[in-house]
Amino acid sequence: MSEAAFTLDGWYCLHDYRVIDWTSWKLLPEEERQAALEEFYQYLDKLEEVHQAKTGSHAFYSTIGQKADFMFMILRETPDEIHELETAFSKLKLADYTIPTYSYFSVVELSNYLGNSDEDPYQNPYIRSRLYPELPRTKYICFYPMDKRRLGKDNWFMLPMSERRELMRSHGEVGRKYAGKVKQIVTGSTGLDDHEWGVTLFSDDMLQFKKIVYEMRFDEASARFGEFGEFLVGTLLDKEKFANMLSVK
Amino acid sequence: MSEAAFTLDGWYCLHDYRVIDWTSWKLLPEEERQAALEEFYQYLDKLEEVHQAKTGSHAFYSTIGQKADFMFMILRETPDEIHELETAFSKLKLADYTIPTYSYFSVVELSNYLGNSDEDPYQNPYIRSRLYPELPRTKYICFYPMDKRRLGKDNWFMLPMSERRELMRSHGEVGRKYAGKVKQIVTGSTGLDDHEWGVTLFSDDMLQFKKIVYEMRFDEASARFGEFGEFLVGTLLDKEKFANMLSVK
Amino acid sequence: MSEAAFTLDGWYCLHDYRVIDWTSWKLLPEEERQAALEEFYQYLDKLEEVHQAKTGSHAFYSTIGQKADFMFMILRETPDEIHELETAFSKLKLADYTIPTYSYFSVVELSNYLGNSDEDPYQNPYIRSRLYPELPRTKYICFYPMDKRRLGKDNWFMLPMSERRELMRSHGEVGRKYAGKVKQIVTGSTGLDDHEWGVTLFSDDMLQFKKIVYEMRFDEASARFGEFGEFLVGTLLDKEKFANMLSVK
Amino acid sequence: MSEAAFTLDGWYCLHDYRVIDWTSWKLLPEEERQAALEEFYQYLDKLEEVHQAKTGSHAFYSTIGQKADFMFMILRETPDEIHELETAFSKLKLADYTIPTYSYFSVVELSNYLGNSDEDPYQNPYIRSRLYPELPRTKYICFYPMDKRRLGKDNWFMLPMSERRELMRSHGEVGRKYAGKVKQIVTGSTGLDDHEWGVTLFSDDMLQFKKIVYEMRFDEASARFGEFGEFLVGTLLDKEKFANMLSVK
Amino acid sequence: MSEAAFTLDGWYCLHDYRVIDWTSWKLLPEEERQAALEEFYQYLDKLEEVHQAKTGSHAFYSTIGQKADFMFMILRETPDEIHELETAFSKLKLADYTIPTYSYFSVVELSNYLGNSDEDPYQNPYIRSRLYPELPRTKYICFYPMDKRRLGKDNWFMLPMSERRELMRSHGEVGRKYAGKVKQIVTGSTGLDDHEWGVTLFSDDMLQFKKIVYEMRFDEASARFGEFGEFLVGTLLDKEKFANMLSVK
Repeated sequence: MSEAAFTLDGWYCLHDYRVIDWTSWKLLPEEERQAALEEFYQYLDKLEEVHQAKTGSHAFYSTIGQKADFMFMILRETPDEIHELETAFSKLKLADYTIPTYSYFSVVELSNYLGNSDEDPYQNPYIRSRLYPELPRTKYICFYPMDKRRLGKDNWFMLPMSERRELMRSHGEVGRKYAGKVKQIVTGSTGLDDHEWGVTLFSDDMLQFKKIVYEMRFDEASARFGEFGEFLVGTLLDKEKFANMLSVK
Repeated sequence: MSEAAFTLDGWYCLHDYRVIDWTSWKLLPEEERQAALEEFYQYLDKLEEVHQAKTGSHAFYSTIGQKADFMFMILRETPDEIHELETAFSKLKLADYTIPTYSYFSVVELSNYLGNSDEDPYQNPYIRSRLYPELPRTKYICFYPMDKRRLGKDNWFMLPMSERRELMRSHGEVGRKYAGKVKQIVTGSTGLDDHEWGVTLFSDDMLQFKKIVYEMRFDEASARFGEFGEFLVGTLLDKEKFANMLSVK
Repeated sequence: MSEAAFTLDGWYCLHDYRVIDWTSWKLLPEEERQAALEEFYQYLDKLEEVHQAKTGSHAFYSTIGQKADFMFMILRETPDEIHELETAFSKLKLADYTIPTYSYFSVVELSNYLGNSDEDPYQNPYIRSRLYPELPRTKYICFYPMDKRRLGKDNWFMLPMSERRELMRSHGEVGRKYAGKVKQIVTGSTGLDDHEWGVTLFSDDMLQFKKIVYEMRFDEASARFGEFGEFLVGTLLDKEKFANMLSVK
Repeated sequence: MSEAAFTLDGWYCLHDYRVIDWTSWKLLPEEERQAALEEFYQYLDKLEEVHQAKTGSHAFYSTIGQKADFMFMILRETPDEIHELETAFSKLKLADYTIPTYSYFSVVELSNYLGNSDEDPYQNPYIRSRLYPELPRTKYICFYPMDKRRLGKDNWFMLPMSERRELMRSHGEVGRKYAGKVKQIVTGSTGLDDHEWGVTLFSDDMLQFKKIVYEMRFDEASARFGEFGEFLVGTLLDKEKFANMLSVK
Repeated sequence: MSEAAFTLDGWYCLHDYRVIDWTSWKLLPEEERQAALEEFYQYLDKLEEVHQAKTGSHAFYSTIGQKADFMFMILRETPDEIHELETAFSKLKLADYTIPTYSYFSVVELSNYLGNSDEDPYQNPYIRSRLYPELPRTKYICFYPMDKRRLGKDNWFMLPMSERRELMRSHGEVGRKYAGKVKQIVTGSTGLDDHEWGVTLFSDDMLQFKKIVYEMRFDEASARFGEFGEFLVGTLLDKEKFANMLSVK
């Protein structure tokens, strides 16, 4: 048995992707569309209040390609709040014109590969800022779930802690090259959803998502041990952009 | 041929997950929605009577994310009772406003890796309490199906019994660390459904699901031999919470 | 090139699983529901006539869980009869209230691993009774498709005949322990459907399905070479049980 | 780099499978059903004209099981003709009562493993008859797509040409045993559809599909290198049989 | 850690595939169909203006088989323009009669395996013509996504740069044999969509797609390291051809 890694855990996190049922939306009379949007804006306003109060955070982005039209990433202190927000969205008029296509549930996490000290990490302001992050409003977002491989000789969970630590250190070095260009939030989902981790990237330049993920693929932690699920990318939304996106002549 | 493990088998078990067809539900007049809920409460009451009489048990939880909106886990003495409950649910008015998304059929089981004695285990009160368990009402639930790997050198079913027993013992030790925090019910489904086992976890702290499953992933029984299906988690429901969840302004 | 096994082939076989569209069924007026059932009973009567005449056979069972609500297993002398029965079912009123979810096409088979003699096996009454079996009316049924693995060193079809014969002999010994408890019908589907074999088990005790499949998983023929598709189990139906199942208050 | 095989390429080929939407079809008034069939017969007549003129060919069969109700295999000189036939079918009234379930696009091919000479093979009448085949009207059809494995030591495309030729020769010998019983048409689809080849078998005895594919599974070309997609089988259709199949009392 | 390849990146790229909902389209009155087409032609005209201005490019093709009826490949300077075009299409009347079936998001790329110099490659006119290509109007198109394998000893991303360069050089030689017959555009999608690359081929002879992909499968870069997703092929469309395709008597 290999020494287990432990994690520091922060806010609960839900990624929620939906397509718009355009045909039905277009059939709706303009004033009902406006009413649906107004009601939805109140939902957005409540998310924004929590974001401002720093008792949670969220991101709201479009999604490129047919996988979805828009997505939310929502951070909250409890799974109950996450579930209430899901239910509240379902009750919105707008929800009747959307079809859910993908979701992911996880918890913001930091692993013990990176640091080690005697202090209580949950009291460390830097660590707190990473466990309870204020999601940025960069122009672009990228999300993908992933696992560490357990296959024949490439079995991450059978490696000694020292080897895993060295691989993660080297992996982190690639990441640091992108400091200032890409903000990364790792969420753990072992026991919560179908993969072991989710990775959310934020950047003002979408090309940086391609560059960082491609460069990382050559380091051993990814090359030998990374297994990747689907990748979803999108562009920043706000009320005005969403209204434009949904406006019908 | 490797010495086969044998199992002690208790109640039959069905996990049943469904999403709510919110658009149709909202279109239903309020009094029909109430009538549908009342009828559903009678179904819940019958489940509760059996639970109280200890001739079966059940759990009723929401599900986080798009995989489902709510789920039942139902334990009964016979597969016939399980099937009758499924059919009875289908006939409810409420069922017309739900869409089935996932189910799993299995039997509560204890494996012979753990104990060994001359007495009839089915007469042992402790074993009986585990084969015919009263499902707890913790705040959170987690379910996942799993298999033991049979791949090249990592073939669980080709290992000698002694090696399997040692791996399961070590696996159990991790589990015991979570005593009092996580209650685990293992159900066997070889020959009954698509995986070999189902694991249902109950806890008042959802984070414990992540911690226990992640820690176990480093022990050899999981690291080399565990293959995992989907993970579904949720929050406790009762009539009042369900009514709130389904209430439409 | 390894010496090929050959098979004795009996009746053609179709497994056909369907869910009931309960919402539409409930909307149908009671007298139309009755008429649909009466018409369906005539279909059942024709199946029963052939079963009695021993020119074919069939089984009619519910299915537990969301994979299906009920299933037919139909044995006939020709694929044409199988296809005619499928088409006849589609034309029934009842069919409009069902949604097909799974089917499997195969041929009852006996392999040459088991016996060897100079007589014409198709004239042997025991072999005939197994190639053209009268399906039993046990309380429970189990079906799963499977393949023999062809992966690296675990390649069934590259083994010498003598080794395959020995593995099948040992596999058969486990099976014989369940004589009187489980009746097994093996159907071959190489070239006919997506797996190489289908296995249908009949028993009056559903737990025996779990016991036999689990015990067999430890013998090398399954442990190293078995690859399993989905498992579907159910309870015996007849007109009365089906009427109860479909009755709506 | 291994010496590449080259191929002789004949007609383009589309396999197209569809289920019938029986519920809607039954709701259609009888005279509209007749009109839909008449219009479809004109489509069939045009296929038959090309088949008679030997500027293309086609096969029209039912499909057993839930994968489809009927299928076309269409051979034409250009992909444009194939696409026009697809579009023409979509415009038929009958098409509104069908749901597409599977298609496969490929090109009739002969590989250079088999022959070698100085003459222009496209002028050889025997080769021409195989590249531009007149599809038979046997009682049964079988189709499956396949790939050659590229996995660890079992990598077909890394084998020297001589070894591949020897394996294909031995594979062909099994095939020749079925001469007169099974007619096989191999179509190549690398670069055109999801697998590397399609195999279509024709026979008056469906059991021969099972026998030939099972026997071939023991030769090394299949045992070590064959990866198989879905298998679809059916029975011969013509106007009369199709009219019977679609007739509603 | 292996030395990472880097890439030159050009325009963003979306492949978007859709089937036509023929049944609904046929139900639409002829003048509404004409209006829908006219509105769609304005969309096409705007694409063509950008193509002429060389600030982007696009291709518009049918798709053979049931995977889709038609597809767009769209190149633009920013992901925002790509998303705006998606949204604009969704708002078209024609969109209500289509169902999305597949999309792929990527960036035109050149890899550093091929060249090496001190000049700024983004100023090199030849490189610019490949990063910002004018898509041709050949008769046929082929698209497939792919990955480089990371499995046991066949792990592309663990190879030294020199070995990868040699494999890519040899791979490129096969490609050069098809110069003048097949135009290839490689787009990178690591971090953007589910595979690592997309490959789009253009040719006036569809058989060349089969020939080049099959021949390449024998070179080590593909044989050992290529993993391929779905293949989609089609024929060139323009307004007239699309009008013919959608015309209903």
